[in-house]
Amino acid sequence: MSSFAGRTAIVGVGRTESPRTPGRTSLSLHADVSRRALEDAGLARHEVDGVLTAGCDYGTYCEEVAHSTVLCEYMGLRPRFTYTVDLGTPVFAKAVEIAATAIASGLCQTVLIASAEAPVSRASRREAVEGMAHFGHPEFELPYGVSIPAFYALLARRHMYEYGTTGEQLARVAVAMRRHAALNPWALLREPITVEDVLASRMIADPLHKLDCCITTDGGGALVVTSLERARDLRRPPVLVLGSGQGFSHEHLVAAPSLTTFGSVGSGAAAFAMAGLGPEDMDLAELYDNFTISVVLQLEDLGFCGKGEGGPFVEAGHIELGARLPVNPHGGLLSEAHPGRPGGILHVIEAVLQLRGVCGPRQVPNARVGLVHGVGGVMSNHATVILGRE
Amino acid sequence: MSSFAGRTAIVGVGRTESPRTPGRTSLSLHADVSRRALEDAGLARHEVDGVLTAGCDYGTYCEEVAHSTVLCEYMGLRPRFTYTVDLGTPVFAKAVEIAATAIASGLCQTVLIASAEAPVSRASRREAVEGMAHFGHPEFELPYGVSIPAFYALLARRHMYEYGTTGEQLARVAVAMRRHAALNPWALLREPITVEDVLASRMIADPLHKLDCCITTDGGGALVVTSLERARDLRRPPVLVLGSGQGFSHEHLVAAPSLTTFGSVGSGAAAFAMAGLGPEDMDLAELYDNFTISVVLQLEDLGFCGKGEGGPFVEAGHIELGARLPVNPHGGLLSEAHPGRPGGILHVIEAVLQLRGVCGPRQVPNARVGLVHGVGGVMSNHATVILGRE
Repeated sequence: MSSFAGRTAIVGVGRTESPRTPGRTSLSLHADVSRRALEDAGLARHEVDGVLTAGCDYGTYCEEVAHSTVLCEYMGLRPRFTYTVDLGTPVFAKAVEIAATAIASGLCQTVLIASAEAPVSRASRREAVEGMAHFGHPEFELPYGVSIPAFYALLARRHMYEYGTTGEQLARVAVAMRRHAALNPWALLREPITVEDVLASRMIADPLHKLDCCITTDGGGALVVTSLERARDLRRPPVLVLGSGQGFSHEHLVAAPSLTTFGSVGSGAAAFAMAGLGPEDMDLAELYDNFTISVVLQLEDLGFCGKGEGGPFVEAGHIELGARLPVNPHGGLLSEAHPGRPGGILHVIEAVLQLRGVCGPRQVPNARVGLVHGVGGVMSNHATVILGRE
Repeated sequence: MSSFAGRTAIVGVGRTESPRTPGRTSLSLHADVSRRALEDAGLARHEVDGVLTAGCDYGTYCEEVAHSTVLCEYMGLRPRFTYTVDLGTPVFAKAVEIAATAIASGLCQTVLIASAEAPVSRASRREAVEGMAHFGHPEFELPYGVSIPAFYALLARRHMYEYGTTGEQLARVAVAMRRHAALNPWALLREPITVEDVLASRMIADPLHKLDCCITTDGGGALVVTSLERARDLRRPPVLVLGSGQGFSHEHLVAAPSLTTFGSVGSGAAAFAMAGLGPEDMDLAELYDNFTISVVLQLEDLGFCGKGEGGPFVEAGHIELGARLPVNPHGGLLSEAHPGRPGGILHVIEAVLQLRGVCGPRQVPNARVGLVHGVGGVMSNHATVILGRE
């Protein structure tokens, strides 16, 4: 069976104006980011023949079964390939995979992937945070007092118990993300923080402090994926889809085979195998940093360091710009923006911009190959894509 | 770009016990039909490495973002490829396409597709009908007095105006479906009806009478798709995925370029082109018969007859068993079962059973190639798959 590795490329990206978009509906934000991504690619609207969206949680059309076709009508698109694809936050790495397989299979040539929401501006910050916390199975889990930050706290505590990981080490993830965000004018939070600041911030779910948790903002973005052939005629250097993979271990945390090893092991291995590359070949990694512990877990499960070595790896500064494996040079969900479900698309966009070499002060020098990893639920669903310059 | 045509096959199918499943949750029905489909294929659960579901509208887990992973956990599956795919009722033809491209691209080998609900038993019949009627954009459309049966009535009236189609001709669709259902022990309604019965039944939305409208039941089913290589080792004759296509013209009916020609034109043409076949090669067609007019429109748009000739085509009896193009030998949504969103999967299952040649009194003799078409919204989203024996 043939693979689609290296046969398609991301040729356009677009983001919302900023991580705050008061007065805007999810649908109009979708259209905004789509227009920007098409303009970035130098493609006309009528050249889009595939459309993927991920549904929306806030604003009109939330409950749409056929969310992607609502966007198509709004933008006047008549694609021959369209879906609404749901799988929580790792959906964007998966959407890139769907787009690449559809194009490589001849179902369409140019796929638009869009997702944007304004949870903070449409709801209140409190409602937005509650909505995200209750994601999953609140009817069975909330009676026991556990919601999303607490689930991740369990993982952090277990990692500390098994491997001696420290709160200081976790805090280093947040410090690195903020250091990166300071170089990104689009990021919401750019004031430097220290390990002490993280440890002194309010305890949310022991051992996770407030600054161990991602922020809550509006925002989102869009991607344009096309065949490599077509990509070569366009204005941006093509960023190739070299490999992809998915991994799944559980839905409820109680069913997870482990509290420290997750489906990223499988998704990473599949993506590396398809790309014919390994962790050591990555110039940067975009990891799903909803909580600091998640980054540590992904570094280990994706093979950037050994199991249990994520804490020391982070402490050594390896994930910072200028070091061995820059992680989230844009500042990630911890400092740049986290609009709920569309959060993961911002990781893909940063990887594309880095591989184009246009990131200015936060540019990873000579970045040729990068990995993007998305996580959904409580480390339940995983998707990895490997992107690279020709 | 290579196509996946003929490289994968449907090797297992399973349905709910009956179109009435009181006391059952959507999730347990999903598991039921999945187990049956795997048993039918002679495959063990651990051989499933891809899972696709379509979300659910009734019962616990309705609002799940990650519906497919809920099923995976419930059944103890750990796939390396999984999505929840939404696009209303044509999703099953699309799901077959996703499964086929994923397998042909090497992302996984064996995909389980499942969807089942109990709208009537979980809610009341009235609530179930209302839920289906309000599908779409009720906040903008209901104030004008229009919901799902009325939208289709507009299409029927326009077709009558443009092409002279008659109520008697539409009624012939319902009569044919009932005649077929009488031969299908699984079907809910098996009492024969006449054209007069249809015309004498209560007017729902002029010109559509009650018997022009699909029934409302529980039910659903599952499919197992695998590589042709693997399929050849299994117990059932492989039913190959020969071609597929999608079409989209509008989301709100007011934006439709026509009230009598829809996206099935494009989805059919794409599927036929991929399969290297034409309408004249089809031994049977499974068409989305939510209303009698829909069948007439699909017959025309898919090229089984000329535009405007659907009424006379049906009146001549061409869609009945034993005639030129048997349509829905199982009795379809009009007489067999219509559990809301999972309705379309029953069309795929019947096509597979027909192509295996195991349909007893309703068997289309020597059926080798069949078409399945799904429609979502008000003729908004279309998907076609062409299936065939080796």
